[in-house]
Amino acid sequence: MTRQELITQIKKKKSFLCIGLDTDIKKIPTHLLELEDPIFEFNKQIIDATKEFCVAYKPNIAFYESMGVSGWNSLQKTLDYIPTNIFTIADAKRGDIGNTSSMYARAFFENMSFDSVTVAPYMGSDSVTPFLEFEDKWAIVLALTSNKGGLDFQKIEDENGKQLFKQVLETSKQWGSDENMMYVVGATRTEELLEIRAIIPNHFLLVPGVGAQGGNLKDVAKYGLNSDCGLLVNSSRGIIYAGNDVDFAEKANAEAKKLQQEMAVILSEAGL
Amino acid sequence: MTRQELITQIKKKKSFLCIGLDTDIKKIPTHLLELEDPIFEFNKQIIDATKEFCVAYKPNIAFYESMGVSGWNSLQKTLDYIPTNIFTIADAKRGDIGNTSSMYARAFFENMSFDSVTVAPYMGSDSVTPFLEFEDKWAIVLALTSNKGGLDFQKIEDENGKQLFKQVLETSKQWGSDENMMYVVGATRTEELLEIRAIIPNHFLLVPGVGAQGGNLKDVAKYGLNSDCGLLVNSSRGIIYAGNDVDFAEKANAEAKKLQQEMAVILSEAGL
Repeated sequence: MTRQELITQIKKKKSFLCIGLDTDIKKIPTHLLELEDPIFEFNKQIIDATKEFCVAYKPNIAFYESMGVSGWNSLQKTLDYIPTNIFTIADAKRGDIGNTSSMYARAFFENMSFDSVTVAPYMGSDSVTPFLEFEDKWAIVLALTSNKGGLDFQKIEDENGKQLFKQVLETSKQWGSDENMMYVVGATRTEELLEIRAIIPNHFLLVPGVGAQGGNLKDVAKYGLNSDCGLLVNSSRGIIYAGNDVDFAEKANAEAKKLQQEMAVILSEAGL
Repeated sequence: MTRQELITQIKKKKSFLCIGLDTDIKKIPTHLLELEDPIFEFNKQIIDATKEFCVAYKPNIAFYESMGVSGWNSLQKTLDYIPTNIFTIADAKRGDIGNTSSMYARAFFENMSFDSVTVAPYMGSDSVTPFLEFEDKWAIVLALTSNKGGLDFQKIEDENGKQLFKQVLETSKQWGSDENMMYVVGATRTEELLEIRAIIPNHFLLVPGVGAQGGNLKDVAKYGLNSDCGLLVNSSRGIIYAGNDVDFAEKANAEAKKLQQEMAVILSEAGL
């Protein structure tokens, strides 16, 4: 999917919601467990219930990988089921030397036809650039993450007082463009969005952690929105596990709708 | 596998050789392509030809993942075929927030029974510690990598002149012990092994890049050996693609034997 196509979807749906498909066999409603592929059945009903309110789905690859071969099958079926006008993110946080990153890119872009993959920056340029060589595909690079351990290294300051995540932004933005790169920016630190926007005014930001991890949608929008929206705000557990009974899809529908309505107001106020 | 069991194997085989199973369908001998599972057949013959000379095998997960479900099947069969006295490394470079890292740990340790997984440190403590909660299993953390992009961030100096990879060593070594953590250290920068050993004298180091990437075995041993050996030196392409005809396994055997013999001399000179 191109940047322009994504922006068009955002304006059409009045939403910049991304829904994380962190589908855990231990957490889905028990009545699904009798079915042949409970993981896919859960995702299918979630997608049916939420697709009008979101512009992206983000399967968390670990959850499928942990199921072995059957998990990869469920993932492929889920990906095939997502409407083509919805942006897909393989949340895989891959990153290795050049020829190995090329293999990962092939796995997610050719074998599975995801629109994008999340990528870890520690190994530098040749771990990211192989993901940028595919037309209309995206690398979403980890910059600032909202987990506890995010503080261990990402905010280390160099001799000029520049924090590591800012160096990651400044260096890596030269490897591609805002047409094939986005950044993961944790939502629990909204005040830093301002500083991030000073470095990358135009790139899309994938902001996880609104909802279960405590981020605030209005603050994220206040500091993170740009003239093309430039945000994908993710909610996973808050939507997909809103209910855990036969009405789980209805509950997910209601939660997704609620977030979309908040986003519609935000977009409208921003003239988008 | 425990640390002591690994050391016992090293002394018994007079080898600290790890063989990287970077098995690429585009590079294996063409006569294998007629078989039902060429990837597994290649690995099987490589294992048969080299198992007496190495103490570890390291499948590069990207190469299997890029083949989709059939690749995961080939990987599982390969893992099942590796003798239980040989240490196994899932070279996956995973790393995510806590509950997601737990999923990856489950995938590689429970679903697939690898002894260890390589892990990226960018997201900090909770991305690594879930891998340390399994008995006799290991996290192998990226510290200094030998690829071109390794220079982009790993050597950034903080206000005290300390490079990022040293901060990663100092901080992360507190998360576990030398019984459940190792470190990836690129072999093209042998002079830095001395500084690394000052921070982590006892941990095992996984040193990729001897062979195809130009590392020198003697230099690695000179600066990296400790009183328990403390090294796993990896060669991938130099061994598995030593030949690309029907005699590929014989050629791999010869290359592995050559490295093992060099290692035997090194271990003997070190009194191990």
